[in-house]
Amino acid sequence: MHSIQDLPIGLDATGTRTESDSLGEIQVPADHYWGAQTQRSLIHFNIGDDRMPKAVYHAYGYIKKTAAIVNGRAGRLPQWKADLISRVADEVISGDLDSEFPLYVWQTGSGTQSNMNVNEVISNRAIQLLGGELGSKNPIHPNDHVNMGQSSNDTFVTAMHIAALLAIDGRVLPAVTRLRDAAEARSKEWENKVKIGRTHLEDATPLTVGQEWSGYVAQLDDAADHLRHTKTGLARLAIGGTAVGTGLNAPPGFGDEMTAQIAELTGHPFVSAPNKFAAQASCDALVRVSTALRALAVSLFKFANDMRWLGSGPRTGLHELILPSNEPGSSIMPGKVNPTQAEAMLMVAIQVIGEDSAVSMAGAEGNFELNAFRPVIINNVLHSARILADVMDHFRMYLVAGVRLDDSRLKDNVDRSVMMVTALSPVIGYDQAARIAHRALDEDLTLRDAALRSGVSEALYDRVVDAKRLTRPGVATGR
Amino acid sequence: MHSIQDLPIGLDATGTRTESDSLGEIQVPADHYWGAQTQRSLIHFNIGDDRMPKAVYHAYGYIKKTAAIVNGRAGRLPQWKADLISRVADEVISGDLDSEFPLYVWQTGSGTQSNMNVNEVISNRAIQLLGGELGSKNPIHPNDHVNMGQSSNDTFVTAMHIAALLAIDGRVLPAVTRLRDAAEARSKEWENKVKIGRTHLEDATPLTVGQEWSGYVAQLDDAADHLRHTKTGLARLAIGGTAVGTGLNAPPGFGDEMTAQIAELTGHPFVSAPNKFAAQASCDALVRVSTALRALAVSLFKFANDMRWLGSGPRTGLHELILPSNEPGSSIMPGKVNPTQAEAMLMVAIQVIGEDSAVSMAGAEGNFELNAFRPVIINNVLHSARILADVMDHFRMYLVAGVRLDDSRLKDNVDRSVMMVTALSPVIGYDQAARIAHRALDEDLTLRDAALRSGVSEALYDRVVDAKRLTRPGVATGR
Amino acid sequence: MHSIQDLPIGLDATGTRTESDSLGEIQVPADHYWGAQTQRSLIHFNIGDDRMPKAVYHAYGYIKKTAAIVNGRAGRLPQWKADLISRVADEVISGDLDSEFPLYVWQTGSGTQSNMNVNEVISNRAIQLLGGELGSKNPIHPNDHVNMGQSSNDTFVTAMHIAALLAIDGRVLPAVTRLRDAAEARSKEWENKVKIGRTHLEDATPLTVGQEWSGYVAQLDDAADHLRHTKTGLARLAIGGTAVGTGLNAPPGFGDEMTAQIAELTGHPFVSAPNKFAAQASCDALVRVSTALRALAVSLFKFANDMRWLGSGPRTGLHELILPSNEPGSSIMPGKVNPTQAEAMLMVAIQVIGEDSAVSMAGAEGNFELNAFRPVIINNVLHSARILADVMDHFRMYLVAGVRLDDSRLKDNVDRSVMMVTALSPVIGYDQAARIAHRALDEDLTLRDAALRSGVSEALYDRVVDAKRLTRPGVATGR
Amino acid sequence: MHSIQDLPIGLDATGTRTESDSLGEIQVPADHYWGAQTQRSLIHFNIGDDRMPKAVYHAYGYIKKTAAIVNGRAGRLPQWKADLISRVADEVISGDLDSEFPLYVWQTGSGTQSNMNVNEVISNRAIQLLGGELGSKNPIHPNDHVNMGQSSNDTFVTAMHIAALLAIDGRVLPAVTRLRDAAEARSKEWENKVKIGRTHLEDATPLTVGQEWSGYVAQLDDAADHLRHTKTGLARLAIGGTAVGTGLNAPPGFGDEMTAQIAELTGHPFVSAPNKFAAQASCDALVRVSTALRALAVSLFKFANDMRWLGSGPRTGLHELILPSNEPGSSIMPGKVNPTQAEAMLMVAIQVIGEDSAVSMAGAEGNFELNAFRPVIINNVLHSARILADVMDHFRMYLVAGVRLDDSRLKDNVDRSVMMVTALSPVIGYDQAARIAHRALDEDLTLRDAALRSGVSEALYDRVVDAKRLTRPGVATGR
Repeated sequence: MHSIQDLPIGLDATGTRTESDSLGEIQVPADHYWGAQTQRSLIHFNIGDDRMPKAVYHAYGYIKKTAAIVNGRAGRLPQWKADLISRVADEVISGDLDSEFPLYVWQTGSGTQSNMNVNEVISNRAIQLLGGELGSKNPIHPNDHVNMGQSSNDTFVTAMHIAALLAIDGRVLPAVTRLRDAAEARSKEWENKVKIGRTHLEDATPLTVGQEWSGYVAQLDDAADHLRHTKTGLARLAIGGTAVGTGLNAPPGFGDEMTAQIAELTGHPFVSAPNKFAAQASCDALVRVSTALRALAVSLFKFANDMRWLGSGPRTGLHELILPSNEPGSSIMPGKVNPTQAEAMLMVAIQVIGEDSAVSMAGAEGNFELNAFRPVIINNVLHSARILADVMDHFRMYLVAGVRLDDSRLKDNVDRSVMMVTALSPVIGYDQAARIAHRALDEDLTLRDAALRSGVSEALYDRVVDAKRLTRPGVATGR
Repeated sequence: MHSIQDLPIGLDATGTRTESDSLGEIQVPADHYWGAQTQRSLIHFNIGDDRMPKAVYHAYGYIKKTAAIVNGRAGRLPQWKADLISRVADEVISGDLDSEFPLYVWQTGSGTQSNMNVNEVISNRAIQLLGGELGSKNPIHPNDHVNMGQSSNDTFVTAMHIAALLAIDGRVLPAVTRLRDAAEARSKEWENKVKIGRTHLEDATPLTVGQEWSGYVAQLDDAADHLRHTKTGLARLAIGGTAVGTGLNAPPGFGDEMTAQIAELTGHPFVSAPNKFAAQASCDALVRVSTALRALAVSLFKFANDMRWLGSGPRTGLHELILPSNEPGSSIMPGKVNPTQAEAMLMVAIQVIGEDSAVSMAGAEGNFELNAFRPVIINNVLHSARILADVMDHFRMYLVAGVRLDDSRLKDNVDRSVMMVTALSPVIGYDQAARIAHRALDEDLTLRDAALRSGVSEALYDRVVDAKRLTRPGVATGR
Repeated sequence: MHSIQDLPIGLDATGTRTESDSLGEIQVPADHYWGAQTQRSLIHFNIGDDRMPKAVYHAYGYIKKTAAIVNGRAGRLPQWKADLISRVADEVISGDLDSEFPLYVWQTGSGTQSNMNVNEVISNRAIQLLGGELGSKNPIHPNDHVNMGQSSNDTFVTAMHIAALLAIDGRVLPAVTRLRDAAEARSKEWENKVKIGRTHLEDATPLTVGQEWSGYVAQLDDAADHLRHTKTGLARLAIGGTAVGTGLNAPPGFGDEMTAQIAELTGHPFVSAPNKFAAQASCDALVRVSTALRALAVSLFKFANDMRWLGSGPRTGLHELILPSNEPGSSIMPGKVNPTQAEAMLMVAIQVIGEDSAVSMAGAEGNFELNAFRPVIINNVLHSARILADVMDHFRMYLVAGVRLDDSRLKDNVDRSVMMVTALSPVIGYDQAARIAHRALDEDLTLRDAALRSGVSEALYDRVVDAKRLTRPGVATGR
Repeated sequence: MHSIQDLPIGLDATGTRTESDSLGEIQVPADHYWGAQTQRSLIHFNIGDDRMPKAVYHAYGYIKKTAAIVNGRAGRLPQWKADLISRVADEVISGDLDSEFPLYVWQTGSGTQSNMNVNEVISNRAIQLLGGELGSKNPIHPNDHVNMGQSSNDTFVTAMHIAALLAIDGRVLPAVTRLRDAAEARSKEWENKVKIGRTHLEDATPLTVGQEWSGYVAQLDDAADHLRHTKTGLARLAIGGTAVGTGLNAPPGFGDEMTAQIAELTGHPFVSAPNKFAAQASCDALVRVSTALRALAVSLFKFANDMRWLGSGPRTGLHELILPSNEPGSSIMPGKVNPTQAEAMLMVAIQVIGEDSAVSMAGAEGNFELNAFRPVIINNVLHSARILADVMDHFRMYLVAGVRLDDSRLKDNVDRSVMMVTALSPVIGYDQAARIAHRALDEDLTLRDAALRSGVSEALYDRVVDAKRLTRPGVATGR
């Protein structure tokens, strides 16, 4: 009876088409599927160039498909309507309808306009497939059918969680793993390369380059663990709460059915949020994800900062590392090479820290049954996730993978350093050791010369002050 | 001799073209003007979707044009080369070459790659106009000619200042003025509308709606003044400092000549930065602009927040204001209207505050002769300026211009409020006044009834407790 | 041989005493135990009034006691020396020596000066108990004996972890539990009190007061879970890494022995950090704790903000809640009562968010083998923990415990609200429902009147639009 | 008639005394002057250890004294009462009553409790001087007389402005001046010391140490200018606006009279805020001051960061600077010296940046006629001002004043650097110059050797590549 035509996406029309909503009629571009509410939003909110991330719409595709399935299964929606909505939702999920979702980030704080954008596009695309009249809302109504049993208040935050979880799992965590693996390879490769450690930037006792890099690996592992933990909150979906969390207009069990279906479709362990009031009135789960991204950025900042300092030089810097020459470094200074990957990482880390500030403030500002600062939250979280993942991959490929050691510099530093005097301290006492260190510096002596001139025996010195042995925990003090 | 052809922008070629730099050869898309260094940057830094703002390149157009003029005038560059570079620079300024500037924000911290992008595009576009061989760097060399007397270290921050100043002057300040004018109109329109004030959100003494709005106007005026003051620092350009601030490879007076010419071309009072070392080693002037944008955001937050609360309701909120119904407010709740413009403003303000956090941290991280966190700074400053300007215009057009008073609510509030008891306090003393207030609340009386029952004479009450008179400074106490 | 006298704490001397370190001699106040390095720090860093939190020294007491036990047990330290240090360390733990730890937060970034302060005080107090000469470092030397096998680089961050964990476990988490319990009691008490929900601050569909409060409880539970998770990182101690993480001058297994002993003494499950390089070069575990405190602050902000808005009035605000009158609210407006506990909570939350910004930036700035921004990190973390815990208790006692419902206001709101039209939407369609809502508002009708005049049958209306039933998930739609 | 006794400050009583306010009676400690509202605040808000800064009370002293003078002059207050209040206010200003102001920062958001604390203390101290009964409020009533014509809403923010302006003028700006003078002295002393510049941390072209330090001076000068500009807003006082900005209960002209008198007493150019509604509903002027302190912190961060890196070593770091040895650097590494003053500066800068985040958020959260986040704002602003001023002085005395150059390291760097090849670029072209630079690095040659082997004539080289000449702007290119 309702014959569905297999039409490709696209509207072969020019000029405008009349669409309507509860505020009346409005003209929309005839070659687009969206309806009145989308059009109003485009007019009232064309602020900057920031568009709601497409990942939010893809997540919405899952929600609309799932709702059609669940509502169809229960008989609340005729099966053919359910099937049709589900089919169009697949087009949303795939990204094929991306150009139909033009709305700005800076819109209503609930995300209602983006929800209605999806509802309108699915409605009209379905109507097109049925050969009906666009804008008629008949027989697929954006609110009554596509949005059945749903509110923006539960679906938008659900879409935020889905999109964020997919980004964390699909982009960020794999990129962390790749980077920590690359760093660990370096750590192993250089596990016997002795260098002089630095504390307060000042010469300290020796360690191996591999030990230093093992620290980066451990930092990344811990940051990933922390981020992983915040996924628990993301996996809890508000869907089923509808307008204010009570589930008004959603049937009993709707939240559970929806999340089970979404979990199946996406392959991720989503569950129904145990408290819908908290799930809609706050964005706490996303705030926590954001803080975990920030904490990851903090760890990456240290890693990248070390890289650029250790690579500084080549003649007047530390230059323990030889960074890859990926590009000329200067428009005026010929032959200059700069730690550009590290700089990109540092800048991304700073951006993520700044964006998290925005997320926290936005997360605090919910009122009563709704946090109406959702668009700014999801835009920042997805953006931070994206640039962090990308920069980790680039940093890995174009810095970590190509960095080499300046062996002669490492050796020179070990030979010249004075702080290995520390190893003598348990034998001759801190005060005497300090005198030797000061003497070496004041008289420009090697530590060995200073020690011997101060009465330390050659045998003792050579037994105790052996840089390589000093890097092995628990060995140095074995006297 | 060097005949210049009048060719439109565009390269009619497919596949790739060989370009080279000091690291060797590389293939670039044949239909683009950019060269080797741009291409390397595209490969090494395709991080996220954030591209260096086009405004930076337009500003660079002014710099390259000016340098050609100044170098040509002094005979350092043959006049025909100067003219040619200047001509192509005009194409950069106009935006006609925008698609040739594809680089990402997350690149080298000095902006060198964007400078070289400009140099390469101008070089090849000039070579095209001469009928030469693209990539040959002959007879217009990207470094030797387009970049003559310049470094990325002085030009990039110069372009940042130009772009930021044009954004502040061209977008932000006019939008503030338009908004404060619209608010002032409302302030005058409603100068006699009495309402009950609120402190701590609690009922307080009366004022007029016009007085309340005069506060918004004053806040905006002060924020604009502060922002205006930070332009002083923006107007000081680093140009002339070249690599490290000494001006190496720039002729004497180059900075002064350049800024005078840029001032003439742009119509803005740019001057040569008095200390090039500070101008290149820090981004302090931009940090200050960013803090002024943040302070403006803080003021706007309060304005927008008041609007949404005063418009809350319609039945269970404060509802002193009737906000315009720009769009349906809910996908599930029919007939709902929300304070969406205010929400957009609040979200933009939060974003600006977050972006300023990034700018401050980036501004702190300069080392020695360069702050190598410039891209993240300029991207945030220009973005904040853009969304602030846009949201102020939308907030003005779609909220301030359309908002109406709920006169009956205002009147009800005045009639029911208890805090006008304050006016009695100087006459009967604070302690007795407090007793009356508590009585009114405890016994659910009007203030008048409570006062009279507590022994205040009708004559006294009616003389002193007159809401309208209480809104006029210095009048109420005239006993 | 070494007879220990049972002397009370205190030095009966006036004027100054000569103390010395590797930089030479210096005068210290004769009535204090501290030595040369403490004195130098007092001179060079008397910046502001911020002192290193005493909790750091108490944690150091555990470390010094443990080191004495472990070193004594292994024979590296004569047993009587170990016992003596252990005894004095107990005085440190108990707080009895608090006045001997005067150093400022703004000192060396490693915390060395605070470590030496502890070493010097224990040394001199031990010498006093032995009847020796203060400042002689004999027979208990601050470095050779009290600091045996330790560095500031491993001990200070170990003390930070211990102090932070004790604060989280001892103060913050119990206060969260108490607050969520109090909120849950309210949630249960008011589980049948129907109210009109608000989204975007605008009237929405009904829920019960108990449901609303259940959201606060859920937010607090999730925030506590998140905070609890970050304790894992805190429980990992750097001790054993000494100067740069290699464990130079510490015997094999020292880290494990130390943490086992500290765990026993404190009753908390401390373990040896698996990677000492990360543990000393970063403060990532504390950064994560700080972000969890921030996230808790975000949740609390929403709770407190709701409270003050719901309590606003009494005549012109929302006034669903009657806040306790803890104190007069105004110096000029008699009888005014303000939501002061909520304001204190909001301010504390903001402070915590700001302090976390400082912690994140400081956490990012480590270099090579040391994060030299430790004092600013621990001071902020402990301060945030303290004020959060305290304000939660006060908010609970002086607001949550005393707040009452304004039943008549709640009922009025339910009677007057229009948004229950949502319940009709599944029956009559969104578009028709919207028309009814607009009619009610435009013609100032009750929803019932508007619905009936628009053709909805009385029977249908009364069956569907029942506020209480609408608050029960899955019931409303059971048509 | 009212004989005033010349009694010293102090109450010779034990136990408690009954005081009362509009909520009833309460016991207060008999040896303190404060009354019921102070006592209630102490109970309800003992949160953390943060007390309202004493500077706020000293500023309040000026306000109360001024109000007494102005009210007395106009006959609203009997002259003897005015004189008595004025006399006690002097005791407040002097700090002699500091111990009577014990309230916490985390109190009511308007600061009412601190205002009432002042009112109560002045009342009871005046009553003591008159030989009256403490707590009787007779004949000097805290509200009716001490608070006459005032509200907390106008006075507290007035006190904030006064206290902040005195801190900026009295502490911060002088400390900036002292530091920039000290840095300028170094800049002049070292104006001919040539060093190799660094951009991206990598070797660049030469400059003099004096030039580098001139950059710090310029940064400080600009930061001070910016801070100075924000004083304009601070100088505008809310006083006269009373409860909501209308001036209810204040006589006409009260704001002008008050500010004129305060200006005279303090010697600072205070004026009456032109718009009292903005002055009380926002804290924008303080938000701007805070951002200026943050911007100063950003500049100082760069200065201090350069210092610690340039002083790194002594053997394996940059070590162009020899930092003063103020204290031993390590508890385990004998003879170590660290850049502790720089670290303290960096930590303070980070703290100030974090505190400004709190101020901005608090500044945004005002509602209607009051910003009820004042205590958190003033506490952070005064704290930031204090620690910035102090750390600048210490950094100057203990680092800038004592730092020395490592001349041999500077010379070595100049001799070994390759980037002076830049000077050849205008003569031989960028591409050829780049080849020479790469050759020098690849073959481990000096630049001179590489240039000569690549065909550059000795004469040309020696004429162009002269490090000292290359530091003088406009000279190098004189070919």
